[in-house]
Amino acid sequence: MREAVMEKIGQLYEEMVAIRRHLHQHPELSFHETKTAQYIADYYETLGIPYEKHVGGNGVVATLVGGQPGKTVALRADFDALPIQDEKDVPYKSTVDGVMHACGHDGHTAALLCLAKALQAHQAKLPGTVVFLHQHAEELAPGGAKPMIEAGVLENVDAVFGTHLWIDAPVGTVQTATSEFFAGADAFDITIQGQGGHGAQPHQTKDSILIASQLVTSLQQIVSRSLDPLHPAVISVGTFHAGEAFNVIADQATLKGTVRTYSTCDQDSIKRAMESHIKGACMSHGATYTFNYHKGYPPLVNHKEEAELVIQSVMEVPGVQYAYYIDPVMTGEDFAYYMLERPGAFYLTGAQKEEHNYPHHHPKFDFNERALPICAKTLFQCYLAYQQK
Amino acid sequence: MREAVMEKIGQLYEEMVAIRRHLHQHPELSFHETKTAQYIADYYETLGIPYEKHVGGNGVVATLVGGQPGKTVALRADFDALPIQDEKDVPYKSTVDGVMHACGHDGHTAALLCLAKALQAHQAKLPGTVVFLHQHAEELAPGGAKPMIEAGVLENVDAVFGTHLWIDAPVGTVQTATSEFFAGADAFDITIQGQGGHGAQPHQTKDSILIASQLVTSLQQIVSRSLDPLHPAVISVGTFHAGEAFNVIADQATLKGTVRTYSTCDQDSIKRAMESHIKGACMSHGATYTFNYHKGYPPLVNHKEEAELVIQSVMEVPGVQYAYYIDPVMTGEDFAYYMLERPGAFYLTGAQKEEHNYPHHHPKFDFNERALPICAKTLFQCYLAYQQK
Amino acid sequence: MREAVMEKIGQLYEEMVAIRRHLHQHPELSFHETKTAQYIADYYETLGIPYEKHVGGNGVVATLVGGQPGKTVALRADFDALPIQDEKDVPYKSTVDGVMHACGHDGHTAALLCLAKALQAHQAKLPGTVVFLHQHAEELAPGGAKPMIEAGVLENVDAVFGTHLWIDAPVGTVQTATSEFFAGADAFDITIQGQGGHGAQPHQTKDSILIASQLVTSLQQIVSRSLDPLHPAVISVGTFHAGEAFNVIADQATLKGTVRTYSTCDQDSIKRAMESHIKGACMSHGATYTFNYHKGYPPLVNHKEEAELVIQSVMEVPGVQYAYYIDPVMTGEDFAYYMLERPGAFYLTGAQKEEHNYPHHHPKFDFNERALPICAKTLFQCYLAYQQK
Amino acid sequence: MREAVMEKIGQLYEEMVAIRRHLHQHPELSFHETKTAQYIADYYETLGIPYEKHVGGNGVVATLVGGQPGKTVALRADFDALPIQDEKDVPYKSTVDGVMHACGHDGHTAALLCLAKALQAHQAKLPGTVVFLHQHAEELAPGGAKPMIEAGVLENVDAVFGTHLWIDAPVGTVQTATSEFFAGADAFDITIQGQGGHGAQPHQTKDSILIASQLVTSLQQIVSRSLDPLHPAVISVGTFHAGEAFNVIADQATLKGTVRTYSTCDQDSIKRAMESHIKGACMSHGATYTFNYHKGYPPLVNHKEEAELVIQSVMEVPGVQYAYYIDPVMTGEDFAYYMLERPGAFYLTGAQKEEHNYPHHHPKFDFNERALPICAKTLFQCYLAYQQK
Repeated sequence: MREAVMEKIGQLYEEMVAIRRHLHQHPELSFHETKTAQYIADYYETLGIPYEKHVGGNGVVATLVGGQPGKTVALRADFDALPIQDEKDVPYKSTVDGVMHACGHDGHTAALLCLAKALQAHQAKLPGTVVFLHQHAEELAPGGAKPMIEAGVLENVDAVFGTHLWIDAPVGTVQTATSEFFAGADAFDITIQGQGGHGAQPHQTKDSILIASQLVTSLQQIVSRSLDPLHPAVISVGTFHAGEAFNVIADQATLKGTVRTYSTCDQDSIKRAMESHIKGACMSHGATYTFNYHKGYPPLVNHKEEAELVIQSVMEVPGVQYAYYIDPVMTGEDFAYYMLERPGAFYLTGAQKEEHNYPHHHPKFDFNERALPICAKTLFQCYLAYQQK
Repeated sequence: MREAVMEKIGQLYEEMVAIRRHLHQHPELSFHETKTAQYIADYYETLGIPYEKHVGGNGVVATLVGGQPGKTVALRADFDALPIQDEKDVPYKSTVDGVMHACGHDGHTAALLCLAKALQAHQAKLPGTVVFLHQHAEELAPGGAKPMIEAGVLENVDAVFGTHLWIDAPVGTVQTATSEFFAGADAFDITIQGQGGHGAQPHQTKDSILIASQLVTSLQQIVSRSLDPLHPAVISVGTFHAGEAFNVIADQATLKGTVRTYSTCDQDSIKRAMESHIKGACMSHGATYTFNYHKGYPPLVNHKEEAELVIQSVMEVPGVQYAYYIDPVMTGEDFAYYMLERPGAFYLTGAQKEEHNYPHHHPKFDFNERALPICAKTLFQCYLAYQQK
Repeated sequence: MREAVMEKIGQLYEEMVAIRRHLHQHPELSFHETKTAQYIADYYETLGIPYEKHVGGNGVVATLVGGQPGKTVALRADFDALPIQDEKDVPYKSTVDGVMHACGHDGHTAALLCLAKALQAHQAKLPGTVVFLHQHAEELAPGGAKPMIEAGVLENVDAVFGTHLWIDAPVGTVQTATSEFFAGADAFDITIQGQGGHGAQPHQTKDSILIASQLVTSLQQIVSRSLDPLHPAVISVGTFHAGEAFNVIADQATLKGTVRTYSTCDQDSIKRAMESHIKGACMSHGATYTFNYHKGYPPLVNHKEEAELVIQSVMEVPGVQYAYYIDPVMTGEDFAYYMLERPGAFYLTGAQKEEHNYPHHHPKFDFNERALPICAKTLFQCYLAYQQK
Repeated sequence: MREAVMEKIGQLYEEMVAIRRHLHQHPELSFHETKTAQYIADYYETLGIPYEKHVGGNGVVATLVGGQPGKTVALRADFDALPIQDEKDVPYKSTVDGVMHACGHDGHTAALLCLAKALQAHQAKLPGTVVFLHQHAEELAPGGAKPMIEAGVLENVDAVFGTHLWIDAPVGTVQTATSEFFAGADAFDITIQGQGGHGAQPHQTKDSILIASQLVTSLQQIVSRSLDPLHPAVISVGTFHAGEAFNVIADQATLKGTVRTYSTCDQDSIKRAMESHIKGACMSHGATYTFNYHKGYPPLVNHKEEAELVIQSVMEVPGVQYAYYIDPVMTGEDFAYYMLERPGAFYLTGAQKEEHNYPHHHPKFDFNERALPICAKTLFQCYLAYQQK
């Protein structure tokens, strides 16, 4: 059965590419992926695999009960796109202005759909039950994973696996980590409210630019002094905007930024420490502030046994040449929520092109489509390996 | 004649207010004051006083030759507005989005126009010649005074007087100084060129926001440490703009600001010290920069005799209760250029409202319109006093 | 044989405590441990085990060739003390003013000596060869490990094991890591040379306190911005001294501090970045500096297989209840040098007292002597396990 | 008589130098000048001029009643030294380790003593009464002037004059001001109480060195932003001491410094602003602090008529070539207290050397001894001129 499914996946390569390119041309922003959801639903409809739409939003969940006894394992693919203008010059370029699949979610979806088709062809011999989790809104907190879980998608599920096409590794590579894998990613904005006035009369003002500048330097001290040096963390101020005229002291300065951590404890420490630094900077000049801290996805922490299962089993997949552990990634992933509920692991599937690779979220991002069947095959292999665990 | 003119000015109060409010509703930015210039020209056209337009830019100069012999004295009023959003709640609020008469130039113009009308009514008995200098672009270096002088407006002029409505003194007050009065006002812009990148990977970037923030705090050390404490000086950063996305490290940060001094020596010291601080901040992170320092108006230095003439004579003006010398002002004024060419003096005319006063350049700035006739009367009084000198 | 040695070690408990307390009463500073070295040598002399003195300094190396074939494994114990005043109130308190065994090296030595005695009793049945590495000067870079290695102590050695009594874990606990375990620990000193002068005339000075203060805040940016967030690192300024009179601007400020890293690459990055920040801070004020960066011990990186061998085998040791992997420690250890040359592992032996525990290097530091036989037994177990590897 | 005294002073030049050099070799710190006081007393004892010791502390007051009627005028010279290590290479270098006459008080004393000798020689013809105020403790608030006044030294005095040898002006120059002349000089000390700990574990500490460093940079913002740019003011941190070991995070940092202002309003503003900045810096890290602000000497405000008398009369003194008004000085002088009680003036006597001049309070400070007779002569001239007023 295993070989037959693998072979079938191989045969579906052209369909996989076609699906991926269709989705690529019709990207939809997070929480607005209605057409994509319908496309997915239609696919299962055609296959005759039972599915549910509108799960926790635009989520689609299909379930294939194998003919043999076994565990229930969910495989997840996300399907939303990004607010980026496609600048590639390819026939399957985005047709939607300012929206683009710049992260590979189109590929995840294509791989999972074709895996479903391949598995259905061998349903009788399939042990256990496959739950196909087609998740919306991965790119935008609070994300789609959480509401889908709340809608009950994990109810009878024993484990969850997922993968991400990865531009930084060549095709044939699989990477994962046994514990922390993706960071918790939060956002913040700070407004320093000073008091404006004439640039030549600073003593009648509270210089918001100076206060905010002092704050930016002071925030560095949180990572350097207040956190355990062994705990990776990042605080970055991404925007600083204040003032309209060179000779007027700005009454207000606005900062926006991001925080990355691998534990909710560090997340809380940073939030508290940031507020102390903001208070301190404002107190020096008698200014006031607003501080909004938006908690994003929690850290994605793989389960050790399932991560080891990934590394050990995927080497049996035709086309996989390297499988190894890597350092955690500082970006966020709402696959994290599944890992808080069930055993499982997330891994990266190498998708580098032969030349001209652009990073994820780049206007010219594209990936090597030869990685698509590897996605499907490794997900299947993880499913099988977990059955035998 | 003097009493008659004073009385006439008094009678023109309502017209003065109407003109001022009209201008207030239709403010124009420095060097773009074409409609205002036309409005002024039209006024002289209607009066039948000869005038010239497009003098050194948008300047308008009218000349009234009195029926009696005497000296030629120029009276100056500026008429440009500021890039500030009017936040007042009054019927004569600015109708132009983001542009506002937040400094009182509308009042200067209204007072000078009505003075012209009042003087014309008594032209026959008027000694000497009045030159009405309606100057554009006072708020933005290189200013309008310099090109108007270069266009020859001072050619036959013996002395120049000018005044500024002043929110910090009550109506009935006149203030001036016998020497340094307004500061030298320079402008600068600094661009810190770091290296952008993902907010979660600071080590692959050079964080321009951090470098610029460090610089803003470091620049404070010039006034506090590098200048003689007895030499008044101000360095203010008025704008700080960097970054477009909260989770992307900004590659470039731009600062704009102003420097105020009373000596070219301090001006040069500050410029040099600023460059050292910028270099130092960039060196810490291997960033680069551009630094443009635009020397602006020179310090406005009144002529001693004419300043004394102001204080001594304005007390005769009805409505003036206090006339005295004050400390220099840290703001700049391109009236300075006239003082480099001719004798004369600049003075402040108190224009405080009964309640709720906001500083010059504030979005809610407004002044007491009862000061308008005092402006006109004191300018006339200075003119007369200079004739008798 | 194994059980017999274990039992013998148990019987030597009182001798172990006696040796430890003798050493505790007679501590010697790093590189001055001549009496301690003689004490160790005398012990082997008495046992009749061949040894060498003055190895790479004050090091003592004894060699016990077992009666059975096998590998040569070195076991290391350090024996220097610290410049700390003993403030404990115990009969075996230090008799040397200002010098104290505040880190447990007295215990390491006692355990290794008694292990030698126990092994000698069963020499005939002992497989392989034990090299007893009694190392001087662990507390003070450049340390004793390096010169002892240069003197050839590892020449025929197959692997090296060592342990540290650890106050943060209860007796019965063994902890290690499979890779980075102790940090690279460097020292630095910075002198900012400004220009002194009267506190009231800052413009005639270069304020070294301000420059150094700016530098201290700026140095925080190295950890927060310039290093990979996944690489643990610490830069701490431990001393800041400048100025003698409140009203005199200090011409010189001196900073001393420490740097901790887990890779020589980060070590080099930090050194370079520190110099950039120092240059930048000085450039802002035209000051000069001296910067000395003293590289200390490299990171201690355990060998994976030998670390796993420790965890797997020590559970067989009577008295060991917990053996597990822990996060790296930010302090330094010159055991690191052995790991650069040979396979092996370093581990921690829990030595918490029932109550009143003070941290390592504290004037009241003491450890639970019941951990001594566990030290000896686990070292022996590692030795045996390696023979069977 | 005048010429005779002037000539006599000239003849005493070598004695003046000898006295000055003796004092220079035996400096004593403020409030500990017992030997210097005795030396002064002995001098008057020898001269036979009545004097009093222990006046308000270590003060010595001698009184010479002239043979002619006139007013009573006090002439003041201070005699304490500074906690600075003499680094000059001259035969009369300080013999006291760490103590030095680095401000010229030795010269003031030598000049006043020799003036007494010269006047005594012409007592019969001298109009009025000279009070020789030898004041201790000028360098250290609360100073010696206040307790000497409280002890009654000004009781019958009509006016007070005093001078300071001044390294910034050539010999032959006399400078003064008609109003504010020396600044109000306050002292402060700040202790930042953080939490100490291991240099490798910053997250378990509150790094007092970092907090205090942040504070030092932040304090610069008071002068640059919070005070009217037209009001001269200085805040200098003169000492920063924290930490004992390079690898231990310091729990406490201590700053000492000085504040200079010309108005009590600015003095109060600065004190309040400092506390805000200290609070702000501590808040950022949850540290605590102590802040002591010691108001020191008030601003020294000369009396207009007596200052004019100085300028007008000293030009008659042989050797004086320039006498003029200067801007105020930012240093403090407890001569201020005399000016609060009696008419009078303080002035500067140029004392520049031909080459290699170091500022006051510099370890290599020295002055031109040719200024000594000019000190004595100008004081005498002021005395005479006041008699004729």
